[in-house]
Amino acid sequence: MKTISKLASRNQTGAGLKINDIFAETAQTDNISFGMGLPDNAAFPSEALEEAFHQAVINEGMGVFQYHGTQGPQVLREKITQLADRYYGIDIAADDVILTQGGQQAIDMVGRAFLNQHDDIIVEGPTYVGALEALDGYEPNYHEVPLQADGMDMEQLELTLQKYPATKFVYTIPDFQNPTGITMSLEKRQRLLALAEQYDFYIIEDSPYRYLRYSGDMLPSLAALDQNGRVVLISSFSKILAPALRTGWLTASPELIAHFLEIKAALDLQPPHLNLMAIDSFLANNDLAEHIAKLSAIYRTKRDLMVTILEKNLPESVSFTRPDGGFFIWVTLPESIDATKLLLGPMLKEAKIIYVPSEMQYASRQVKNHFRLNFTNPSSTDIEVGITRLAQFLKKIC
Amino acid sequence: MKTISKLASRNQTGAGLKINDIFAETAQTDNISFGMGLPDNAAFPSEALEEAFHQAVINEGMGVFQYHGTQGPQVLREKITQLADRYYGIDIAADDVILTQGGQQAIDMVGRAFLNQHDDIIVEGPTYVGALEALDGYEPNYHEVPLQADGMDMEQLELTLQKYPATKFVYTIPDFQNPTGITMSLEKRQRLLALAEQYDFYIIEDSPYRYLRYSGDMLPSLAALDQNGRVVLISSFSKILAPALRTGWLTASPELIAHFLEIKAALDLQPPHLNLMAIDSFLANNDLAEHIAKLSAIYRTKRDLMVTILEKNLPESVSFTRPDGGFFIWVTLPESIDATKLLLGPMLKEAKIIYVPSEMQYASRQVKNHFRLNFTNPSSTDIEVGITRLAQFLKKIC
Repeated sequence: MKTISKLASRNQTGAGLKINDIFAETAQTDNISFGMGLPDNAAFPSEALEEAFHQAVINEGMGVFQYHGTQGPQVLREKITQLADRYYGIDIAADDVILTQGGQQAIDMVGRAFLNQHDDIIVEGPTYVGALEALDGYEPNYHEVPLQADGMDMEQLELTLQKYPATKFVYTIPDFQNPTGITMSLEKRQRLLALAEQYDFYIIEDSPYRYLRYSGDMLPSLAALDQNGRVVLISSFSKILAPALRTGWLTASPELIAHFLEIKAALDLQPPHLNLMAIDSFLANNDLAEHIAKLSAIYRTKRDLMVTILEKNLPESVSFTRPDGGFFIWVTLPESIDATKLLLGPMLKEAKIIYVPSEMQYASRQVKNHFRLNFTNPSSTDIEVGITRLAQFLKKIC
Repeated sequence: MKTISKLASRNQTGAGLKINDIFAETAQTDNISFGMGLPDNAAFPSEALEEAFHQAVINEGMGVFQYHGTQGPQVLREKITQLADRYYGIDIAADDVILTQGGQQAIDMVGRAFLNQHDDIIVEGPTYVGALEALDGYEPNYHEVPLQADGMDMEQLELTLQKYPATKFVYTIPDFQNPTGITMSLEKRQRLLALAEQYDFYIIEDSPYRYLRYSGDMLPSLAALDQNGRVVLISSFSKILAPALRTGWLTASPELIAHFLEIKAALDLQPPHLNLMAIDSFLANNDLAEHIAKLSAIYRTKRDLMVTILEKNLPESVSFTRPDGGFFIWVTLPESIDATKLLLGPMLKEAKIIYVPSEMQYASRQVKNHFRLNFTNPSSTDIEVGITRLAQFLKKIC
């Protein structure tokens, strides 16, 4: 006799549709996908990356294939301190950085560091679906604070903190948020940090898109504004170099870093050394800023194209965000429309396009009339054809 | 005001010395290390691996750098089913395999799948230190069953199961165990499976060393003897190809695989695709069995050398295991000697050799008079010099 009840409670909640389910159901070649948050294939610096792997083996010899440290190679962490200075405006030491398996693992590590079952945490509504999947593993009590055009609703945030004063952290994506593309204003960044001090919580600043700004001026990161070691900053090479490298990093106060290091060792011992030495070699021999500028030019054009088509074709009852950077546009349908049912029903059949419905992007799993569009991965032709098809279809039904 | 009490309870237990602490304290060039469980640097097929990375980029094009699936590429999972057949005697489908960040991540995934706080689990005493660090994150109640020369003490196991009938799983390393080198007999394997049926628990078979047998005959794996989907089998390319690839895999019944896939997505989305395609290319263009035979010849010689020196030089009050394969020999000191204090005190100062003391390798953290020696990584010269120094030092004090 054997029962599925051997599974931990975290796996029995049936939290509903996962993003992988959507992609499984929509995997057909004649659909145009605006679903996954992928970079443009054609924009990978693949020759330089291949050369970087070659160099890593040449430079390091046989030892490159051996076990190495948990934190990641010092030489790469030194280069990351320069990135952190340039792109996040923070002055950190190499010892303050831990390499992770993409930003995703860093989010899991945050859950593992802070969360007991039923602890209170605050997330944006909507938020990154992968963060919810990672944090679900720790069975927190989520409290959702709605996003406004300039970031979290600070009044709602303060009401939530009054109601849940033991809140352990606020998880936020302040720059070109996933999934909305919204950027948090400077005033709200300062207010969030002041509240963190007042209510004694940590801020998890997940900011992988920050490098990719197409309009407007860069605002200070939360980590740069932080005076009291309250921010855990998560970044990644996935959006600016290559996701398949599975390389992200986090930085935090030294006392937290010591705990995160123990957690990283428990999770998978250490990062893949060869990949990290290849990234190090890439950064030594290429101009990352120049590559980011090139990416930004490509993605700016695609964003402008998608915005233009949406503006021209969407009915008035449907609205959407105009992000200054990142990967995503967020579309809001009339409240009566369930974007999941729409996708899996007539949208796939008639418009043959794929998006990520809002349901799974809210901790509550209750808000259903929005969806996320990715504009970085599809070709310009696919954007023209697919988004026109999408908008015309919505015109019929909204 | 900010308090470390924000940390989850799992990080406040102060479970004592970690293996990384030992290596931090002993990192000096004039010490000879038998501590970490490393392959021989000189035995990496580094040219073939470099070529395999090159081929992966050539064959896959730009897409190799993109996001991919959570489970790992189908083509590599197909090849793993062949490995599973040859080395573990099991007939599985590619869909039954998930690629992981080394075997370590698979152990963490097992904890995440099964364990609520304070759940009962059974581990061998001693066991793999990294498994304890991973499972500690789920705050289980450990019950330790002592090892005998032919594997777990089955009488103690049954008594433990009678006392803790809700035990969720038994974690075992049946082949050339880490840290003892002990292999579980066929009778005990059959008994363990019968008990699993009787007491309704899962068996976690962690078997990364199974490929590397230097004497005696291969016994059936627990997975091969399992008729009822009770075994989760964990394996890895770290010991037979290269640890820096950070690639392991697990296989289990289809209903468990579905849960493990959700867990893998939550932990880090997906494995590093380029590395996996390089492994696939390596397996397509090289004879893994031949490489394993070459490794086994190297490691057999080193094992024999270490055993011979220990036999010749150890005092009678000190005993040690003679493993048929794997990476480790386990040394037992008189009960009055604390191997941790010995290491950090006179052993380092006088004998200048490093081992892993037993304390951290028992879930109880209470058994202190043993230590683990690795024989695969040190050179023959280092084995001769270091083990002679160790044995002569022990002769003085035991």
